[in-house]
Amino acid sequence: MEIGIIGATGYGGAELFRLLHNHPEVKNVKLYSSTQSGEFFQEIYSHVNNKNYTLQELNPEEMKQQLDIIFLATPAGVSSELTPQLLGGKGKVIDLSGDLRLKDRETYNKWYKNTAAGEEVIEQSVYGLPEWNKEAIQSASVIANPGCYPTAVLLGLGPVVSKQWADPERLIIDAKSGISGAGKKASEVTHFANTQENFRIYKVNQHQHIPEIEQQLMHWDTDIEPVTFSTHLVPMTRGIMSTIYVDLKGSHTLDELIQLYEEAYEQEPFVRIRKAGEFPCTRDVYASNYCDIGLALDDRTGRLTIVSVIDNLMKGAASQALQNMNLAVGVEETTGLNHIPVYP
Amino acid sequence: MEIGIIGATGYGGAELFRLLHNHPEVKNVKLYSSTQSGEFFQEIYSHVNNKNYTLQELNPEEMKQQLDIIFLATPAGVSSELTPQLLGGKGKVIDLSGDLRLKDRETYNKWYKNTAAGEEVIEQSVYGLPEWNKEAIQSASVIANPGCYPTAVLLGLGPVVSKQWADPERLIIDAKSGISGAGKKASEVTHFANTQENFRIYKVNQHQHIPEIEQQLMHWDTDIEPVTFSTHLVPMTRGIMSTIYVDLKGSHTLDELIQLYEEAYEQEPFVRIRKAGEFPCTRDVYASNYCDIGLALDDRTGRLTIVSVIDNLMKGAASQALQNMNLAVGVEETTGLNHIPVYP
Amino acid sequence: MEIGIIGATGYGGAELFRLLHNHPEVKNVKLYSSTQSGEFFQEIYSHVNNKNYTLQELNPEEMKQQLDIIFLATPAGVSSELTPQLLGGKGKVIDLSGDLRLKDRETYNKWYKNTAAGEEVIEQSVYGLPEWNKEAIQSASVIANPGCYPTAVLLGLGPVVSKQWADPERLIIDAKSGISGAGKKASEVTHFANTQENFRIYKVNQHQHIPEIEQQLMHWDTDIEPVTFSTHLVPMTRGIMSTIYVDLKGSHTLDELIQLYEEAYEQEPFVRIRKAGEFPCTRDVYASNYCDIGLALDDRTGRLTIVSVIDNLMKGAASQALQNMNLAVGVEETTGLNHIPVYP
Amino acid sequence: MEIGIIGATGYGGAELFRLLHNHPEVKNVKLYSSTQSGEFFQEIYSHVNNKNYTLQELNPEEMKQQLDIIFLATPAGVSSELTPQLLGGKGKVIDLSGDLRLKDRETYNKWYKNTAAGEEVIEQSVYGLPEWNKEAIQSASVIANPGCYPTAVLLGLGPVVSKQWADPERLIIDAKSGISGAGKKASEVTHFANTQENFRIYKVNQHQHIPEIEQQLMHWDTDIEPVTFSTHLVPMTRGIMSTIYVDLKGSHTLDELIQLYEEAYEQEPFVRIRKAGEFPCTRDVYASNYCDIGLALDDRTGRLTIVSVIDNLMKGAASQALQNMNLAVGVEETTGLNHIPVYP
Repeated sequence: MEIGIIGATGYGGAELFRLLHNHPEVKNVKLYSSTQSGEFFQEIYSHVNNKNYTLQELNPEEMKQQLDIIFLATPAGVSSELTPQLLGGKGKVIDLSGDLRLKDRETYNKWYKNTAAGEEVIEQSVYGLPEWNKEAIQSASVIANPGCYPTAVLLGLGPVVSKQWADPERLIIDAKSGISGAGKKASEVTHFANTQENFRIYKVNQHQHIPEIEQQLMHWDTDIEPVTFSTHLVPMTRGIMSTIYVDLKGSHTLDELIQLYEEAYEQEPFVRIRKAGEFPCTRDVYASNYCDIGLALDDRTGRLTIVSVIDNLMKGAASQALQNMNLAVGVEETTGLNHIPVYP
Repeated sequence: MEIGIIGATGYGGAELFRLLHNHPEVKNVKLYSSTQSGEFFQEIYSHVNNKNYTLQELNPEEMKQQLDIIFLATPAGVSSELTPQLLGGKGKVIDLSGDLRLKDRETYNKWYKNTAAGEEVIEQSVYGLPEWNKEAIQSASVIANPGCYPTAVLLGLGPVVSKQWADPERLIIDAKSGISGAGKKASEVTHFANTQENFRIYKVNQHQHIPEIEQQLMHWDTDIEPVTFSTHLVPMTRGIMSTIYVDLKGSHTLDELIQLYEEAYEQEPFVRIRKAGEFPCTRDVYASNYCDIGLALDDRTGRLTIVSVIDNLMKGAASQALQNMNLAVGVEETTGLNHIPVYP
Repeated sequence: MEIGIIGATGYGGAELFRLLHNHPEVKNVKLYSSTQSGEFFQEIYSHVNNKNYTLQELNPEEMKQQLDIIFLATPAGVSSELTPQLLGGKGKVIDLSGDLRLKDRETYNKWYKNTAAGEEVIEQSVYGLPEWNKEAIQSASVIANPGCYPTAVLLGLGPVVSKQWADPERLIIDAKSGISGAGKKASEVTHFANTQENFRIYKVNQHQHIPEIEQQLMHWDTDIEPVTFSTHLVPMTRGIMSTIYVDLKGSHTLDELIQLYEEAYEQEPFVRIRKAGEFPCTRDVYASNYCDIGLALDDRTGRLTIVSVIDNLMKGAASQALQNMNLAVGVEETTGLNHIPVYP
Repeated sequence: MEIGIIGATGYGGAELFRLLHNHPEVKNVKLYSSTQSGEFFQEIYSHVNNKNYTLQELNPEEMKQQLDIIFLATPAGVSSELTPQLLGGKGKVIDLSGDLRLKDRETYNKWYKNTAAGEEVIEQSVYGLPEWNKEAIQSASVIANPGCYPTAVLLGLGPVVSKQWADPERLIIDAKSGISGAGKKASEVTHFANTQENFRIYKVNQHQHIPEIEQQLMHWDTDIEPVTFSTHLVPMTRGIMSTIYVDLKGSHTLDELIQLYEEAYEQEPFVRIRKAGEFPCTRDVYASNYCDIGLALDDRTGRLTIVSVIDNLMKGAASQALQNMNLAVGVEETTGLNHIPVYP
């Protein structure tokens, strides 16, 4: 296969490059950058020191004829423009940005403070959460790779919401992320001295991943009301934990709940359910495509706590995009992704 | 004043020592340790290299005659035994452990998995949250210094719960702490390689600070039901953030809420309320006695989010104990505590 | 005393502000900024939330009449221009930048790639290393506060070089610093994801502190040849360690060497010498004005290893500037500086 | 191939397990532990949650018949006893401990404060530094995998010392390592609160890797005198940097030196030489088998500075052991090791 990455200089693109480099079915990876074309990739990323990759200028016409898969790892607003130009040829498009995820264009405009993509491409695009949307992904020509937070949240809530066991008016999600989620650009927030030995909350009630989460939840349970979703920055580079608080509609035991989750993900190679009393930490999935989930049921309140962890750059971005690629091109879903997490 | 610290070798004791060293009204600080008496303090803490303090053996009879204030910075179970022996002399006792905080002995037994202190000393002891209990503290002979999490949570919830604006059945508290809260003892959890680049949840629904929080909340609003309280370990040394989710009973604007908080803490030198749209981070209170609070009201859900931060070793332990000491001996509340947080 | 800080928005200025706030002889601190005048200081530093300080525009004419001490915490090139305008009034100037440290203007031009200050102000300025230059500091009207690295290196080398026990051709200094040394400005290097879990070397053989170190070494021993000086970035915010390798000219025991150091710093309140076999770590001096020094003598090679640690923002910048202020205005040297380091 | 790991519960063993899991020529990995046999591996390492590996008791007789390669990732003193029992069968032994590296038994006794292995097994064992000892490794039955520090130091010094360009009396090595080098055991030193925001020096002039470094250096240049070697702990989990100071005997340009290094490692897939003016950081080799090297020549002193970085758990332990395995069993040297470093 011939693969292209547009926006290869960001963290998502660099991770994709790393993963594709070891993917047995990939013959050639081409890197594109609108701002740094002509440079060597290793001038930007010194850890790939011995690889002679030149960043190329975009040429949609040529790309769509030559490439089997085109990944877009670009900032918001780019792929809504670019995707239509890349379709209609041989290649499929997998978009890592938020541009093609929301079906309702007004919602996009409001939360992203930007103009939504055209109706046609939005209609065409399939939400790339493989554990819940596998068939559609397999036949899609455009895949909207989920956001990092939504991946952790939706895998955590999927079983209990799709079963309609959760009180739809009382979902509270407290999410925590490593700094790499803020991207490669230097800023006051990402300055080491502002981040280390610090824990902060940001975009309270205003994170653009809220409508993405709600769209899928409503797909599972039409009664879902707006959720409370808070995001925090952890002084670490990678990793997301979502701690999710659910009021159950009926009465269920913890064993029942764990069984519900185990059955929901029985066929899924990348979701691991912890046994009662055990909870994952973000290190458990470091540099891997896993999502680990633990559950607790509080006798005193009757409330369910769901703990879901991913690596935000992997299952939250690049490795999930590769999982989508595997499905889209018809190779075994785990190809090139079967790593044990890096520990310690 | 002559001051004694029992359990001076732990983090709480060492912080007390540091603060008392610069307190203008303190003449002499004596350090006691049951396990390391005879050693020089600087053999344990090399940062106090030039101070010649020897750890002394406990002698309650002598201590209660000589010392004005005796701090207990000991593990659970110690001060319930020791406090009665230290009373009846000249000195007042300030206990940093959880032994004397819970009025209900059965509740202590259950959550601490330990035997509660005697009824008499529990009755005598006053809960040392100065912002809400100042008068009682001023005349107390035994002060139970609050736990680190309860300090952040109760200062965050006090105004809205005491006003009975909060739905008493729906309090959800998601708390995050730096590692120093786990104490000085080396363990698998505190190993650097298990902590750095890691975020974990622990003691889900089982933290011993839950009954302490509920006891005070019920004091403010007798309708309070069991709360959901989750604790997480952040890869940092100091700092606690509590993100608290409140369903309001009536309808209030954010401005009203901020005003409620500003008025509640108007006279309090160590609580700072942020203006609308701003939220504190843990660095904002590093190595200080401040508790900073920010508020958000979500238009979509009507839910209030309270963000409250402290330094767990300071306002969550040692500096709050000093604030209690100031009140108990009748010096200005801010004496020796008026530091600007250390930043960066 | 009335004090002014020019360049209050950088880390050095903010630390000065924190220290001056608790200095018993300081009545009033005025903050100046050429780029952010008119703003509230707490808009830039949220940890000083309750202090209503407005950043003022510079007015040298007025400042030099009103202020007792004017600190310059400005980038290279500013104080060489500004200092002459601030002299001749009531106030003394303490410059935290590198502009007034080098007596040789050509050397400055070469290493700073900038134009040196005028001869007159350079001649007037006194190198503010109190442990080795106290008398001159006491009567100076302009004090050049030493660089962070030179402070650690020179306090470490002072006794052995001034005694001329060191082989002057073979000094090798391997220095390591926390990130705050790179300043407040966001950049690729200070991005958390580039710094955490990373250790890097920078400016190899080219650091502008090299001539400052050599100037003082040559003052002690005119035979000193150019030194090897390497600087590394440690994934932490504060702290410098200099590991210094010295070939001794004659034969000395470790005890003799330790005695030499103890005697050299006997009267110095802020230098602490470790006993044989013990070495300081950077935490030992965190947020304090101490410089801790340990020594090792290798039987096998005869080589002396000197380990010297400081807090780069404190003894390496702000608290040393305050020490210089105390000396210059004639109050007790330790006033407002007598803190125990913050640990952990 | 059938592979066994003795001491699988330590960091070295766990990394080996991770790497072998993705090695295409490895069919089966058996894990052995003398202290935790019977336990599931995932009870110790939650990140391998879905792998059902049971820790087995050691049975040397059986192991040496069944296994192709036996890795020993055991503490000092174990493999000197165990190795002789594992030889004489089908399998080759690769020892990650320091037991079989030193040819002189007295030297071992002195530096390891332990009894050396028997003469026979020491004689048999081959030093597993593939870049400098490939042929011997290919035919060895016992391979002593190099220590982490020696790997970084020797790859850094090899070209210039083997060419005898270095002054043999003046080698100074300043090494820095992440905390994982201290192993998995919880201790005061590895406590997060003692390590984070801290930089320390340890075992000054006494590290047991000193004789290992000198043995190989003397192999290259018999004139080598005892070296100065200092080790520091960096507040990070993985990574070693060695900053090495060399007085050159003759006169050489930087270009000549870089060319010397490029030619020395031309055929070596895992050593990367930086161009003039560029230096590697530890992140550049994170979770990979690379050793990256940069060089600087100081005009002023004539001194050469060599900067060499590795991942201490990879090229400094597990991945280098795998490289040795590949050579010993005759598969392509890079098999299962061809990863791009994980960044960020």
